[in-house]
This record gives sequence, C-alpha cells and structure tokens, in this order.
Amino acid sequence: MAKPLLEVAILGGSGYTGSELLRLLLSHPHVKVTAVTSERSSGTPVADLFLHLRNTDLRFEPLDLRALAKKADLFFLCLPHKTSQETAAFLFNAGKKIIDLSADYRIKDPKVYREWYNTPHLFHSLLKKAVYGLPEVYREQIRKASIIANPGCYPMSAILGLAPIIRKNFVDPNTIIIDSKSGTSGAGRSPSQPFMFCEVNESVKAYAVTSHRHTPEIEQELRSISRKKVNIVFTPHLMPMDRGILSTIYIRTSKKIDLQKVQNLYQDFYRDKPFVRVLGNGIYPATKAVKGSNFCDISVFLNKRSSQGQTLIIVSAIDNLLKGASGTAVQNMNIMYGFDETAGLLNAPHFP
Amino acid sequence: MAKPLLEVAILGGSGYTGSELLRLLLSHPHVKVTAVTSERSSGTPVADLFLHLRNTDLRFEPLDLRALAKKADLFFLCLPHKTSQETAAFLFNAGKKIIDLSADYRIKDPKVYREWYNTPHLFHSLLKKAVYGLPEVYREQIRKASIIANPGCYPMSAILGLAPIIRKNFVDPNTIIIDSKSGTSGAGRSPSQPFMFCEVNESVKAYAVTSHRHTPEIEQELRSISRKKVNIVFTPHLMPMDRGILSTIYIRTSKKIDLQKVQNLYQDFYRDKPFVRVLGNGIYPATKAVKGSNFCDISVFLNKRSSQGQTLIIVSAIDNLLKGASGTAVQNMNIMYGFDETAGLLNAPHFP
Amino acid sequence: MAKPLLEVAILGGSGYTGSELLRLLLSHPHVKVTAVTSERSSGTPVADLFLHLRNTDLRFEPLDLRALAKKADLFFLCLPHKTSQETAAFLFNAGKKIIDLSADYRIKDPKVYREWYNTPHLFHSLLKKAVYGLPEVYREQIRKASIIANPGCYPMSAILGLAPIIRKNFVDPNTIIIDSKSGTSGAGRSPSQPFMFCEVNESVKAYAVTSHRHTPEIEQELRSISRKKVNIVFTPHLMPMDRGILSTIYIRTSKKIDLQKVQNLYQDFYRDKPFVRVLGNGIYPATKAVKGSNFCDISVFLNKRSSQGQTLIIVSAIDNLLKGASGTAVQNMNIMYGFDETAGLLNAPHFP
Amino acid sequence: MAKPLLEVAILGGSGYTGSELLRLLLSHPHVKVTAVTSERSSGTPVADLFLHLRNTDLRFEPLDLRALAKKADLFFLCLPHKTSQETAAFLFNAGKKIIDLSADYRIKDPKVYREWYNTPHLFHSLLKKAVYGLPEVYREQIRKASIIANPGCYPMSAILGLAPIIRKNFVDPNTIIIDSKSGTSGAGRSPSQPFMFCEVNESVKAYAVTSHRHTPEIEQELRSISRKKVNIVFTPHLMPMDRGILSTIYIRTSKKIDLQKVQNLYQDFYRDKPFVRVLGNGIYPATKAVKGSNFCDISVFLNKRSSQGQTLIIVSAIDNLLKGASGTAVQNMNIMYGFDETAGLLNAPHFP
Repeated sequence: MAKPLLEVAILGGSGYTGSELLRLLLSHPHVKVTAVTSERSSGTPVADLFLHLRNTDLRFEPLDLRALAKKADLFFLCLPHKTSQETAAFLFNAGKKIIDLSADYRIKDPKVYREWYNTPHLFHSLLKKAVYGLPEVYREQIRKASIIANPGCYPMSAILGLAPIIRKNFVDPNTIIIDSKSGTSGAGRSPSQPFMFCEVNESVKAYAVTSHRHTPEIEQELRSISRKKVNIVFTPHLMPMDRGILSTIYIRTSKKIDLQKVQNLYQDFYRDKPFVRVLGNGIYPATKAVKGSNFCDISVFLNKRSSQGQTLIIVSAIDNLLKGASGTAVQNMNIMYGFDETAGLLNAPHFP
Repeated sequence: MAKPLLEVAILGGSGYTGSELLRLLLSHPHVKVTAVTSERSSGTPVADLFLHLRNTDLRFEPLDLRALAKKADLFFLCLPHKTSQETAAFLFNAGKKIIDLSADYRIKDPKVYREWYNTPHLFHSLLKKAVYGLPEVYREQIRKASIIANPGCYPMSAILGLAPIIRKNFVDPNTIIIDSKSGTSGAGRSPSQPFMFCEVNESVKAYAVTSHRHTPEIEQELRSISRKKVNIVFTPHLMPMDRGILSTIYIRTSKKIDLQKVQNLYQDFYRDKPFVRVLGNGIYPATKAVKGSNFCDISVFLNKRSSQGQTLIIVSAIDNLLKGASGTAVQNMNIMYGFDETAGLLNAPHFP
Repeated sequence: MAKPLLEVAILGGSGYTGSELLRLLLSHPHVKVTAVTSERSSGTPVADLFLHLRNTDLRFEPLDLRALAKKADLFFLCLPHKTSQETAAFLFNAGKKIIDLSADYRIKDPKVYREWYNTPHLFHSLLKKAVYGLPEVYREQIRKASIIANPGCYPMSAILGLAPIIRKNFVDPNTIIIDSKSGTSGAGRSPSQPFMFCEVNESVKAYAVTSHRHTPEIEQELRSISRKKVNIVFTPHLMPMDRGILSTIYIRTSKKIDLQKVQNLYQDFYRDKPFVRVLGNGIYPATKAVKGSNFCDISVFLNKRSSQGQTLIIVSAIDNLLKGASGTAVQNMNIMYGFDETAGLLNAPHFP
Repeated sequence: MAKPLLEVAILGGSGYTGSELLRLLLSHPHVKVTAVTSERSSGTPVADLFLHLRNTDLRFEPLDLRALAKKADLFFLCLPHKTSQETAAFLFNAGKKIIDLSADYRIKDPKVYREWYNTPHLFHSLLKKAVYGLPEVYREQIRKASIIANPGCYPMSAILGLAPIIRKNFVDPNTIIIDSKSGTSGAGRSPSQPFMFCEVNESVKAYAVTSHRHTPEIEQELRSISRKKVNIVFTPHLMPMDRGILSTIYIRTSKKIDLQKVQNLYQDFYRDKPFVRVLGNGIYPATKAVKGSNFCDISVFLNKRSSQGQTLIIVSAIDNLLKGASGTAVQNMNIMYGFDETAGLLNAPHFP
C-alpha cells in the first residue's frame, strides 16, 4: 500500500448515479475522492444530502473546471448530456482522464447523435478517441483509453445478454426484441409527477415505445460485435421498485439448435469475466439477487413451439445503478489504472 | 325490481379469486349469494377471514354438493383443477348452471389438457358443451350456455390484445411474442416461500419460461378466432405489486401498414364492448388505471425500424382478479341471465 | 327516482382528494356533478388526467366563481388554505352550501388559526357558522349546516379513537399520545423530492414532530367532546404505501379498569354509526382492510404492566382519502340533504 | 495479515439472519467461515439457496454438534429458542465461544424466561455467565465473555434510544411508551399466510399489543442501566418493507428541561460508539438511511405542550438484520477477539 492513491473527482454528484459512485469510491482501496460537485447543493456537506454516506467530510462544490482540473487525475462525469460534451473536452485538453456516464460520447456517428439527442456533437475528434466502456467486450481498448463512454443501463443489460451469440450464424439479428423492466431510480432524483410514490407504486407501464434513446446505442454495439446489420425492437417498462433492470430478450434461430450448446457458448464467453454469472439450467435471474452488486445474472431458454424456426429467450438481470452505471464506471477505472478488475466491487449485496 | 333475485353460490371462496367474486356479487343488484364454501375455513364467518367484507352474515360451509345443489341456480367454481371437473359434472347433471374459473373446461382437446395438466379429462361430452367465456368474442354463445369456462388471466390480456388483428392477412401469426408482467395475487393465498413479502418485494423475475399452462389456452383461442395455425412465445413475469397484468405483445407484419388504420380496427372491434378501452395515440396503459375495475386498456404502436417488415407492439392492461377472473365471471353471468352486461361492474376504481 | 338530482361542483379537482371525491360523486345515486375546476389543467378532459375515471365527459374549468355559482347548489372545496377562506365566503353570500375540505373553517379560534397557519382569518362570522363535519359526533348540527369544515385525516383517525372514552373520568386527558402512520397520498400530487418513489419506498420516518398543524384541531375537538382541558402529543409518520392511516393511541387510566367494559363503551357509542367498526377481542385493525372504503376500524387493548395505573391502547385504521377526506365529505352531504347516510359509500373495498 | 484467521461456524444459516451473518463474515478480513448448517437444506450449496451469495463454495450441513465442534472456535447460533439453549451448553462444555442470536440467554431470571417463552431454562449456571451483547453499554464485559446473548431487534432500537437518559432523575421511568415499526424480514423466511406479499403490501398494522416477548428483555436492560424500577408499554407494528425498525419512544420528564442539554447528553454518551449517530437538530432518522448498514440513527425532540410536565420524544432507526441482529453479532465478535470494532462493518449502505 505504499503506492499513492489515485485522485478522482465526481462532477454532478447529487443524483442517484453520482451518490452511488461516491459510495463505491469512498471505500475503494486505491482511490481518494478529492472533489464532488453540485450546482444546486454547492456548499452543502455530502452527508447532509445523503444520510447513508457519513464517512466523508466532503462538501459539494460548484462546477468550476479550472479549479477542479487541479484537484484530480480522473474525472467521473454524471452531468446532463451536452454539458458533458463540453466538460469532457475541457478536461481532456487539460491532460485529464475521463469516464463519462452521460450519453455524449457513446454514439459514434454524430448524425445519429444529433437525431436522437436534438443537439449537435461539437467534438468529433474526441468522440473518435472515446472507448465504449463495456469491459466484457472492450477490455483491451479500455486499458489504453483516455476517455470512456460508460454504457447506458438498458444497453448494458441487453448487450451482455446478446454478445455471446450475436456473431453466430444460427441467429437472425433482425428478429431481436428486447423487453426491459426497470426500477425507478433510473429516472433520477429530480421531482417529477410521474415518478411520485403514489404514481409508481402498485403499477407497471411501458414508455417511450419505439422511441427510447438507448435504441441506437444498443444497435451500434450489436453491429460492432456481430459485424452484421442489426435492427432491434426495444420496449422499456417502469416498475414499482427502486433498483434493477430485467431484460427479456427474444431472437429467432435460423436453424434447429441445441440449448445446451448455447448455454456452453455463454459459459465460455463469460468464463474470465468476473461480473457476469451464467446461471444453471432452469434457474431464473431476479433483480433482487443482484441488487446492490455489480453482477449481471443471465439465463438462456429455448422455445421450440414455433413452426417457423425456434426462439431463444435470454433473461438478464442487473442493478441499474451498479452494473448499469456507477459499478461499471469503477470497473472501467480499475482496468484503466491496472487495479484488480474487482477492486472495491465485491461486497455481496444484502438480501432481502 | 319486482323480479326475484338470482340465487348463486361460490364454491371455493377463501382465496383471492373467490373473495373478489363475493365482493362483486354482494353488491350486485340482481343477485343473492346463498352459499360460499371453504374446506379449511368451514364454519368461519366470511367477515372473519376477509375483514374488508363486512356487509354479509355468510359463513363458509363445506363442499357438500347434494346440500349445495338445493341452494342456488348458478354456481361459480373457484376450485383446484380436477376437483372442478367433477364438481361441474355433478351440478350440470342436477340441472344447474356453472361458471368455472378453473382451467378444467377451457382446453377443448382432452389430449392437450392431459399433456399440460397431468390428469385425464373424464367428462368429454360436458367439455364439448362448455363455452369459453370471453364476452368480447363469444357473447352470443355465452347467452345460451349452461357451462362457461372462464378464461385465465394471462389469456384474457393476450387475446384481447390480439383479437382485432389476428384474422387479418397483414400480420404473421407465427411471430407472436407475449411478454406478460403480473402482480402477485395471481399466485393465490396459500403460504409459499417464493411469494413471501421479502422474496417478491423489490424484485422482478421471469418464471415458467416456455412452459406456462396458459400457453395452449392462448394458442387455442387465437387459432379459433383467426382460423389459422398460431404458435406463440409466452413469457410470464412476477412483479412486486398486488394486482394487475400488463402484456406487451409483439407481432410482425407481412407488409407495410399504417398505424392509424390499425388503431381504427381496434376502435371498431371494441366499439360496443363496454369493458375494453382503446387508448388514444401515445397514451400508455398502466395497471394502476385499471386496478379494482373490470376494464382492459389497450394501446397499439408500430416499430418501423426493422429491416425485414415491421413490428406491431400492442400493450394491454387488466386487473388480474377482475377482468382476468372474477369480473369477467360476473360479466358472463350478466350475459347468461339477460342482465345489463355492466351490472355490478361499473364502480370506478380508486386511485392512487 | 323522480326527485331531481342535487347539483354539485368540486373546486380544486386535480389532486388526490378532488379526484377521489369525483369518483364517489360520479356514481352517487342522488347527485349530478356539474363542474370541476383546476387552474393548471383548465380545458383538459378529466379522463385524460385520471385514466381511472372514464365514465365522465367533464372537463376541468378555471376557478371563475361568478360562473360557477350558477352551476351548482353544493360546493366541495379542495383548495389550498386561505384560498378556501375567501371562496367559501363568496359562495355562502351567494346562497350556496359548502363542504370545505381545507383547514380554513376547522379551527374555531382565529388566533389559534393564525398561529398555526401563518395567515389571519378574515371571515369571523362565517367561521362561527361552520360545523365541524364529524358525523359520528355532530350529526344533528351537520343536518342543519350551510358550511361544513370537513375534518383533517389525522384528526379523524385520532378523534374517532378517543371519542367514546374522553368524557369518562377513568382516563387522564393529559396523558394522550397519538402515534400515527400515514400513506403517501396524504401529501398530495404536486411533485416534490421527499415524496418521489425512491425516497419513500422501503423507508419509514417521523416528521413534523411536536409541530404538525393537525395538533390544535385534535385538541379542540377532544376538549369540545370531553369538556375538559386536553393536551396531546402527536407524532405523524410517513409510510411506504399509497393510502391508509393507522393511529396507535395511548392514554393512562386514573384507576383500574376492566377491558371488557371499555370495549362495551365503544360498541355502544358506535352502535348506530354505520362507518365505524369496533373489532372483536384480539383482532387487529389493518389499513388494507379499510383501503378504498369509508370505514374506520377500531380495537382497544389494555396494558396492566405499568406500576402507576394502567394504559389503554386504542388502534384505529382509516383510508386517509375516504374516511379521512372525501368519503366523510360525501357522508356529510348525505346528512345535510337527507339522503341515506351511506348512499354511494357502501361498495366493499377490494382486497388484496 | 500473518495472523491466522479465526474459524467460525453458523448454526442455522438458511434464514434471513443466518444469511446476513454469512454475507458479513464472508467478507470479514479476520475470519474464515468453516461451516454453516441447515436441517432442511442439508447438502445444498449456499449459493443455490441465496443467489446473492456467490463468493462461497460452502454447502449447508446437518446440525451434528460433535462434528461441528472440531471445525470452529466461535459459533454463531441462529437456532430456534430451546434448541439454542442446549446447543450453547454443549459447545460451551466443549470449550467453544458462542454468540447466541436467539432469546435463550437474554433473560437473566429463569422464571421470567419460562413465563414468556413457555419452556423452562435448563442451564442456569451458563445463563449466569452469558453477557448481554449490547456493545454500546457492556463493551468491557463482552471483551471477556465466552457466551454472548445477542440482543433482540426491537430491544436494540429501544435501549439505544433510552440508555443516555434513563439514569437521569429528570425522566420518569414509568411513563415509557415504545411504538416500533418493523419491516417484514424480522418475521423470518418460513412460509406463513400473514407474511405473504399480498397480505403485507400496502398495509400497516399493530400486533402482539401488550404481549410481545421483547417486553421483558427491554425492561430488564433498562432496569439494569438505570438501577430503577422500569415498566414500559411496547407496541410493535408490521410495515410493508423488507428491513428496518423505527422506534418512536415517549418518556415524561419530571421537571422542565432544555432540549439542547438532552441532545448534548446523547452526543456525549455515544461519542466513542462508532455505530450510533446522533443526528442534528430537526433531522429525522429514516430506516432507508441505515438500510444495509450497522448504524443506529437517533434524534431527540421535546414536546412542551403538555400541562403536566413535558414529554421527550426519541426516534431511533436501525436495520433489523444488521444492528438489530447479525451486524451487532459481528461487532460483538470484533470486541471479543480484539479486532477493530468496525472490522467488516463499515461499507456504506446503498441508496436508494
């Protein structure tokens, strides 16, 4: 432990993603959090806004980039999109490393970004340098990256569910349907009527059908992994719970296949990936089993009833704030800086 | 109101479905409940087992069919499958009418029944007489029926979502995927670890993937309505809420279609069906909006991104204990006896 | 039914209390709702804001008192305090009857009102005419009233729990502790961070300890009923559920008493009060058993362990939006207009 | 880290308390879990019963005391009462140390034990040796103990709330009322209708009023700390949430007191107690802020309205499975073995 601690800062720390990141980094063995910002809560002790975080004397400070640039080597950006674009560029030019939890550096094609986010991308060369922070697929590129585009929560659950088979010829990449169920923390902490307790409790509904911004992100990565044209149907749902995404993924096979072989493919693909657990035959992933952890649980099923080919059903479960956001951000940091990939991420979650 | 009240009995009244039926029938304008049975709670006042039902002096009695047959003209059966088979046959032979909420008379083909329910069907001629109690499709047959097979909860949400288009040539009936999310009351009131509060709360999971018993029921009815071969993929999920089923249904189109025309088809199909509400463009069904009511809310969406044709996405929401069980049972009774189809079923549900 | 329907209007109908009132009144046999207002949603169909209320063509309209005064005979006010004060005065002068669900006409002493609500009361003579709308105590006065101050939700649960014994000499009115647990709907529908799903879910906390505005209301009524000086300790708590208030009430006895006699007192007091159920020995009130109903369930217990006298423990359960607000408002209307006291209020609530 | 790890075993590991203990011990820096028992699940891998616990190869084994005694030095007993009595005696005679999470060694007076637990205590001399495992009060005795009676969950929340003032003359120990609200995990994992999801969800109720077994435990400890006669009124409530106990405690003062001075007393009492946080003026404890942690949050309020003296209101919040059971058990172990008192217990809980 003679090595000096890595100094990190969190920009935008008053939301659920920021506070989860802070929770992880405060107990990380190789890191020291030197700053955390919040425009609205500037000056307030972190422990006042988040009663569960008492082991810190940090106070929120304003987003003064010049001052902040002197305080840390690595910056986690939990800022709104567009703001993140500019902030990342400033910090990169100041020689800093960046893990951006917004969507700003995820979409490689600026035209697609503009179409879905209603704002132009102004930093094309930096966009090209950004590595999509999916450690289970891009570990080597992450190791050398200066700027990481941390994946969205739905894309994480969908891509991990499909990565092991999307390259294979026995599946038809144009039949993918992703039906995702998410807890409410994904919507953030800002007051809004649809996310009030009495509106969410005891209800489930679909939203943003055919129009959710994570659609092009999922398609881009599935195309990149498979080197095929991929079009998906993606339907997110809002659930009456705090955390968790369960994605039920459907894909048609182009010929008869054997379930056991597919399960073996998954086991092989994730053998040396410490945070993906391929569950045994007939065991169902549940969001509660991964709540509070960085794990992704996956099971694969085969429906043979269809008369036109068969359908693979893949179910994946993650905690949207951990594997779906802040946990993967820490995992990416671990890889970038040569720490153990699981450092600070292996505490078993509580149950119930 | 000079007409005498119809005398009805509920066999198997100590579960959630039975108590919901009792709640509806106790305030129904044309009905008198003369008996309600429960083996385990025989002798107990209903109000002791169900504190929310105080306006009744009924006591649970044992399932003594000879005695019961004298007490009512119409019998609602909320019994386990197999028991229901025999009980229905006895009552039918005694000249009674039956609404069976079990699965015993739903599956027309005894071989299919035996395959999925692990027991033979012993009353083939009565099975032929049974009418599938889906009022939005079989209203005329229900009017004349002596025995009604009341639909399952998942089939109700799935069939109502597909009935208006399944006959049409522009959809491919072999691409149907039904992804359903259900509250916990569907699992009944008997103690069981997976349905304990701490197991269900804050979690979502899939179960019975490719093997749920409602699969052949859905396929049978979709075939019957469409007069085509239909194979489905059906995935049920358990949700942390008491009531409600949201079904997200996917079906590929065989040619380019216009969403507005499809929505018009739904509007036309359900125009004179008092309990189905086709929601306007961009409004999302939510289980909370139908909780405690007999309504089914439906919205239709079109995904044009797929390169191979398009995908229709239909979302339907019901209360599993009402439109998915006891509410439809009362609606069927109303039709059988010439009451107003909505009698006793129009109280707006509370919110939140 | 030859009698013409009573025309009523709801002022402030876009919150939870207003929509609950609307739900009840739309299915009330003797009433026609002619107007419902909302400043923010003026022009919007009610069914668009509240998907569960489809059997109405009403649209929200602005609060134009001159126009509204021509539309109805009875006005329900679900307005913020202070606004309610003035609105009630205007309508009273126009010869209308008023049921005010705000706090403006509950506190008899204008000084106490000013102290707790931070605004003066400007209509002292109307304040004197207002009857506190607690039907179980003031039924005769309500019958003749022109303006009703509908009780607060916590006061309703507390006063019904204490009314049968507070006059008796065997209890000490200065030892009352009221520990109340409330669902979240009591906080209203306006967006606010502390009432977001992720803040309320999986948590319980006390709030407004020693300072809640319902304190003087409870004390005023307990004094009025007992004709003694009464000081209470009142602690409200926020619960992770939509509806329901459970109040656990403690009061010391000044001599040894017999629990059975106390239970008889409660039975006698509430014998002809259709909405209060005194539960049998050892049965515990639960908010779920009254959810969606206008009932108040009460049980009484006796703790004999204390060395200094004994302690009575009274537990009461109500639905805060029904018996705690809109249900009692309808009950008051029924009494004022000579309808059956239970008209429109006897539908059994659903369970679970 | 050259020191050998302490070998520990958990007897009765298939419930919520046992699995929580396992979770904590598996990541504890100074401990190795060598055995965990379960009669019902003997032979099953722990990871199959508890999907959230994957970083262990442990299997449940039967309760064979002779074999187990060779496997560990310290035994955690999560067994039913009576079984625990005998098991502890066997292990003590075998020279082992014991932390008993059942109630068997908590009640010092065997007559009181027999009265409340309906079974005699057969090991009086061992009972005398047992130390009540409340580290904030008995740290020195715990350090030297061979057998610890780990406190009950409700007593923990109540005693921590009262310990700083119960010795003081300005409070009246015969006016204590403890109104506690608990999550459902306290009821254990065995299937039981009252704890099914649909029964608990959306409801709150009191239970075991005047008769809960934690009553004599709380009184015994308050007497021991205060050296006065103490009689309490204790009312537990069941809440629709997994974890957490909030206790709202009322005690009358015998003279006028100053709130700030009382708060200072609390600050002083808990200054060197790492797991108790006395919150600042006007900050309310919430169970969510301590969920998943070993902290107890406490706030103190003063009601001056009473005409007969004043009432102190103390609110305490704990996680019933951590500070209320397994967390304190680990804390006791840390003290017994000279580890840092917070070892393995300082991970910040997640939020939301």
